[in-house]
Amino acid sequence: MFTLHERLRADTFDITRLYLSRVLLMNDSSLPWLILVPERENIREIYELDEKDRAGLIEEITLASRIIQHLYKPDKINVGALGNLVPQLHIHIIGRFGSDRAWPGPIWGAGPAEPYGDDERDATRARIERAFMNYLSSRCRC
Amino acid sequence: MFTLHERLRADTFDITRLYLSRVLLMNDSSLPWLILVPERENIREIYELDEKDRAGLIEEITLASRIIQHLYKPDKINVGALGNLVPQLHIHIIGRFGSDRAWPGPIWGAGPAEPYGDDERDATRARIERAFMNYLSSRCRC
Repeated sequence: MFTLHERLRADTFDITRLYLSRVLLMNDSSLPWLILVPERENIREIYELDEKDRAGLIEEITLASRIIQHLYKPDKINVGALGNLVPQLHIHIIGRFGSDRAWPGPIWGAGPAEPYGDDERDATRARIERAFMNYLSSRCRC
Repeated sequence: MFTLHERLRADTFDITRLYLSRVLLMNDSSLPWLILVPERENIREIYELDEKDRAGLIEEITLASRIIQHLYKPDKINVGALGNLVPQLHIHIIGRFGSDRAWPGPIWGAGPAEPYGDDERDATRARIERAFMNYLSSRCRC
C-alpha cells in the first residue's frame, strides 16, 4: 500500500496514474508543473528503483514532457529529482518560459506559487488528464 | 561528430565516456557534481532521444548517482535536466549535503562555484574515473 507524502499531497492535485507513477499537478497556475511519484515504498533516489522501473520512469518522464510541450509550448522543459525536503522520490517536469518568474534560474524555491482558482484548476486537470488518456488509448490494447 | 557546448567545456573537466554520454566534472570543489552529456547532435530535451538512448540515459544517471553516493556519502542526490541557458541536453548529478551552501534549495544559481586547485582537481578526476572503470570492468566482457 503506497502512501503519498503529506507535503506532496498538500501542494498538488491528482491527475492520473500511470504504470509506475502517480501524476500530480503542482498548485502553481503560473507554470505547467507536473510531478511524477513512482508508487514504490521507501524509495528516495532514482537508483533505488529496479531496472524495469527505471526504464518505466524515463518513459513516463518522456510522456509528461511531451504533453506539457504539446499543450503549453514552453521554451524549455525542466526535469528534476531533488527531494532535499521530501524523502519520497518524486520527479518534477516543468514547462519553463523566458517570461516566467525565475527564468533562466531554477523554479524551485523561486518565490511563492500562484495557487489555482477552482475553475482554472478543474479545467487544467481535465485538459491534462485528457492528454494522458488520449496517449494511452492510442498505445495500449486491452 | 559531436561537439560539446562551449559553456559546458568552460565549466567542467572531462572524466570519461560511457556508452551514450560524456561524463564531466563541474569545476566546483565544494560538492561532488557530475554532468552527463549524451553525445547526440541537436538534442535539447530528454524526450528527443530515442527510446534506446533514453533507457541508456537512466542507467547512466543511476551509475553516476551510485558512484557519487559510494565515494562521497551525500545526504541526497539531486538529478536535474534544466538547460535554460545551454541548448545542449545535459544532466546534472550532484551530491548534496545538509551543510552545503544552498541546502535545502537547489544548487543551480546559488552563489559562486569554488574552483578546484590543480592537485585537488587531478586527484578528484582520477578517483571518479577509477570508480567508473571499476564498475565497467566488472560488468562488461570484451
